[in-house]
Amino acid sequence: MKYKIKSKIWIEAEGNILLGNGRVSLLNAIEATGSLSKAAKQLGMSYKKAWSLAQAMNNRAQKPVIEMSIGGKGGGGAILTSYGKSLIKSFDLINDNCKKFLEKQLTQSSL
Amino acid sequence: MKYKIKSKIWIEAEGNILLGNGRVSLLNAIEATGSLSKAAKQLGMSYKKAWSLAQAMNNRAQKPVIEMSIGGKGGGGAILTSYGKSLIKSFDLINDNCKKFLEKQLTQSSL
Repeated sequence: MKYKIKSKIWIEAEGNILLGNGRVSLLNAIEATGSLSKAAKQLGMSYKKAWSLAQAMNNRAQKPVIEMSIGGKGGGGAILTSYGKSLIKSFDLINDNCKKFLEKQLTQSSL
Repeated sequence: MKYKIKSKIWIEAEGNILLGNGRVSLLNAIEATGSLSKAAKQLGMSYKKAWSLAQAMNNRAQKPVIEMSIGGKGGGGAILTSYGKSLIKSFDLINDNCKKFLEKQLTQSSL
């Protein structure tokens, strides 16, 4: 019988969630589909929810994360800014590093 | 405007949660009160819930975590085994180390 250590990380800006697993999934889906409504559909999320998450990220981040163009069928297009892309990369990297760190910590512990 | 990184860790045994923040609080309260019912009360948790968490920890851990004596007023006494105490210590240590590690990771990132 072996123990496993699990973790969840998220980033806050002024006490509000900026980025966590769910928001990173939304950003990845936006990057893949070029559209907020398609991204929402891909994730089984309502458009309203996706829109409010996108707005929250844009408002809370140090620079805009998503560029949205309004209008057209399906709610217009959405693309990630280069800052948005760098957010995903940094989050994924830190998340991976954290998991490796914790595995090592567990091995080194007396558990 | 500065970002902060937050984390939550937990330990699983064979896919089931063994230990997380809530269970560590329960163990600490048991250690402080010497009683499962008093520990539950301290945490605003039902006795039934505390009892089932205690059972789960004892069943899932490599060694018993809590020694419970049945009977008497208030549901009998409960004390932590030395293994139970070492679980708390290791969890708290890893949790602290994780938070420090993540702060450093955030500083070193481009965020």
